[in-house]
Amino acid sequence: METRKISPEEAASRLLKTDNILILTHKNPDGDAIGSGIAIALALRQRGRKCRVAWSGELASYFSLITEGYENDDIGEPEFILAVDLANPRLLPDETACYADKVDMVIDHHATSVPFAAETLLESAASCCAEIIYKVIFAMGCEVTTEIANCIYVGLATDTGCFRYSNTTSDNHILAARLVSMGVDIAKFNEEIFGQKSRARVEIERRALAGMEFTSGGKICIITITRNMLEETRCVESDIEGIATIPKAIEGVEAGITLREQENGNWKISLRTATLDAAEICAAFGGGGHLRAAGCECSGTPFEIKVALVAAINKRLGI
Amino acid sequence: METRKISPEEAASRLLKTDNILILTHKNPDGDAIGSGIAIALALRQRGRKCRVAWSGELASYFSLITEGYENDDIGEPEFILAVDLANPRLLPDETACYADKVDMVIDHHATSVPFAAETLLESAASCCAEIIYKVIFAMGCEVTTEIANCIYVGLATDTGCFRYSNTTSDNHILAARLVSMGVDIAKFNEEIFGQKSRARVEIERRALAGMEFTSGGKICIITITRNMLEETRCVESDIEGIATIPKAIEGVEAGITLREQENGNWKISLRTATLDAAEICAAFGGGGHLRAAGCECSGTPFEIKVALVAAINKRLGI
Repeated sequence: METRKISPEEAASRLLKTDNILILTHKNPDGDAIGSGIAIALALRQRGRKCRVAWSGELASYFSLITEGYENDDIGEPEFILAVDLANPRLLPDETACYADKVDMVIDHHATSVPFAAETLLESAASCCAEIIYKVIFAMGCEVTTEIANCIYVGLATDTGCFRYSNTTSDNHILAARLVSMGVDIAKFNEEIFGQKSRARVEIERRALAGMEFTSGGKICIITITRNMLEETRCVESDIEGIATIPKAIEGVEAGITLREQENGNWKISLRTATLDAAEICAAFGGGGHLRAAGCECSGTPFEIKVALVAAINKRLGI
Repeated sequence: METRKISPEEAASRLLKTDNILILTHKNPDGDAIGSGIAIALALRQRGRKCRVAWSGELASYFSLITEGYENDDIGEPEFILAVDLANPRLLPDETACYADKVDMVIDHHATSVPFAAETLLESAASCCAEIIYKVIFAMGCEVTTEIANCIYVGLATDTGCFRYSNTTSDNHILAARLVSMGVDIAKFNEEIFGQKSRARVEIERRALAGMEFTSGGKICIITITRNMLEETRCVESDIEGIATIPKAIEGVEAGITLREQENGNWKISLRTATLDAAEICAAFGGGGHLRAAGCECSGTPFEIKVALVAAINKRLGI
């Protein structure tokens, strides 16, 4: 569809011409989605506008840092619909999917953004939506209160892995400097956001570590996740996110292998390497991927698969 | 002893009047110690000065990010001795302890710093020594090369927990913004610094998690570290740093308890709480501490100790 591309200043001026604003974001909202939504709502309220941020599903406990004390206005039938951190209307949760073709403005940072709103403020070089929201709030002439700074910080910290990921920019640090000076309790926030693990995650890690195997003088480390382990621990997909990084993150490990049992009885293999070409190794097993992170799917017993993988890796390690 | 307090500008001008500079730091050096030392050495070399950074012991693998490609000059008998990130000459490693009373200048950020050098540049509000070193390098009019920026970043990231700890300041983020723009590969650095665990650490975690116990509807989580486990895994003190934070970091846990067997057969208890007064609970067992982190030492079997602690905590949880 046709959409008009707008600047933060245009977005600010347009938003100030509206009232009774419904703010949408994607399903399974993260810190950037909720932080962006509440930040812009708090700013618009300073200018007397009524806002409702719609989200669905249970939020991780750390969200209470920004949702506690926040209450939506009663806006009745929305006069204006704003979507934040939403790259595609198909990502709306069921509860707000009815608004998919009625969105007036979208503010987003995803390079994969598709046009679906009348007006689009897209900055795909931004690490998080919250940093674009900050510009809009600034352009609206609103005061950046501690509550707003908290929301922006949560978005920024979530999407940059607390300034650890490669998407972290100089601008992110300059924004963080401003937010810190506005009194964000960063130690508390980061402890809540990054320091906590779900019970299911801990249970699956406990089982994965119990079965962890080392070979080749500690240069290869293997963990195995069976369907039975996932059922026992009631893990959902988000609980096992990043689990394949565990073996490689051990000092001295050149190749970290994760075997995960599939519904069809096959095993999905994730390979992470320090110096070896992971894609080339996995290609020999019908898979592929990147230089240091690749995968393949194998049939057979876990033991047979491990023996074959270790042999292939040992050859490349010269062992 | 008498020491003259100096500014970064005075330090810069003094350093430029010297040559054949020996740079010392504390034993078991961390990223801030090594990063500060190599950064100032690289800067002084730009001005034609010869420098040697002295450190001892095996460095964690991530240090190769800043030590690789760095080579000390042959300075012969040092003409000037600079100590960085060193609060007390007693913290010098054995190899350089002979210089303890010969230090000409110290640059440090520890509030616990004692005067031991002729001149002292102390900024106890700084989160890391590297940020003071940056000021000195700037005052010397040196170019901040990518190599120097890398060293400063490692110091900054190490001492602020990658901008997560409460000591992180606005100034830290502004400095980080500059370093990022100078081309520091922050994703690689942070992966190496924060993403890696020693083999011994993983082995002790594997055993601790295997024996992890939950009670009181998941509100209390207990791990137990026996002397046998420490011997089996050949853990040194740094390998078990922060292990007491594991139980509390699980979602839903109100009280995380770590039992650690002592040489005398007693058990050292660490208690971390979400909302309860940890110091008050531990006081009832002859210990004490802070509101959310406290400890005590108990005799008896682990089971007896756990029963007593759980009963005390349940009472306060109203269970």
